[in-house]
Amino acid sequence: MKTLVIYDIEEDRIRNKILEACKDYGLDHIQYSAFMGELNHNRREELWHRLRRILGKKIGKILMVPLCDKDLRLAREVYVGPEGVFDA
Amino acid sequence: MKTLVIYDIEEDRIRNKILEACKDYGLDHIQYSAFMGELNHNRREELWHRLRRILGKKIGKILMVPLCDKDLRLAREVYVGPEGVFDA
Repeated sequence: MKTLVIYDIEEDRIRNKILEACKDYGLDHIQYSAFMGELNHNRREELWHRLRRILGKKIGKILMVPLCDKDLRLAREVYVGPEGVFDA
Repeated sequence: MKTLVIYDIEEDRIRNKILEACKDYGLDHIQYSAFMGELNHNRREELWHRLRRILGKKIGKILMVPLCDKDLRLAREVYVGPEGVFDA
């Protein structure tokens, strides 16, 4: 199931560890503080516990939410880069 | 339906306008670049077109995704502030 992870982390060191963990689980870095990718239930739980451990008691917020196919179909996305505008 | 909006916007002026638009639609500012709140289909479409117009051809990314009840039940969230740790 597609899973979205978004975070607000104060310390660079902790934020980088969160980023590395999301990459290790094969998620794509879709925005500065957001990753998305396919994770089954077990992998999602594993990643959540890893993120939770990394954050510990450091100031920050993490939200992980699975996105069902219907929600994804209703999603809207725009990306504007130097190459132009891409609507999805 | 609960709707999540996340964005990466380069220009402060544009980012502030995106933030104001999300507030105008009653969404809560859950993270630095993320809003969430209840929007019906029409309001969601309206807000999307407004965000799309604000961004125009400025460098940035916006993702808007509705979250069904099932996805929300499976969501995990942690918030660590000066007052302590809150798991949801």
